[in-house]
Amino acid sequence: MHLPDHAVFRADKMAKVDCFRSERLLVGLNCFEPGQSQAVHTHAGADKFYVVVTGKANFVVGERTVVAGPGDLILAPAGVPHGVERAEVRTLVLVAIAPAP
Amino acid sequence: MHLPDHAVFRADKMAKVDCFRSERLLVGLNCFEPGQSQAVHTHAGADKFYVVVTGKANFVVGERTVVAGPGDLILAPAGVPHGVERAEVRTLVLVAIAPAP
Repeated sequence: MHLPDHAVFRADKMAKVDCFRSERLLVGLNCFEPGQSQAVHTHAGADKFYVVVTGKANFVVGERTVVAGPGDLILAPAGVPHGVERAEVRTLVLVAIAPAP
Repeated sequence: MHLPDHAVFRADKMAKVDCFRSERLLVGLNCFEPGQSQAVHTHAGADKFYVVVTGKANFVVGERTVVAGPGDLILAPAGVPHGVERAEVRTLVLVAIAPAP
């Protein structure tokens, strides 16, 4: 599946799309309009990562903030606080969490 | 981490790079030179997916062969045979397997 074709963007907040879900793994999309964010949060006992497909956003991982664009991997191992402070432009991010929440 | 900066390409065969490993999740890179392949195989009890970062390759999933390029997600749920028949050009693929093999 071509991920950009499955993106859903909402004017009011970041939108999520599920691509695959089992008890072991969740794969989905986080779709940000410019200025949208995802509050910093933590998954206990589950490892997560983001891969930026298109766009540019500021990610928070632990104590760090990183600017990421296409081809960038952002890892958030179990227990590490993470989120998206702000999308600079329309941004599509692949997200995977194992095991699925 | 910018994935293309971590790619390793080998003349003799597809090269793998680990990005993250826990008991729950393996995240890595599969790096193909043109014409290289990955034999069809199956993970029992683990879900896997590929995301093409750069390039173009022919993936096998179950009975299907799909041509995939940047931004394409290829899902191989537990028990489904999968592999890469042939990379058309130098191709970088993100791979995740949950739980890690």
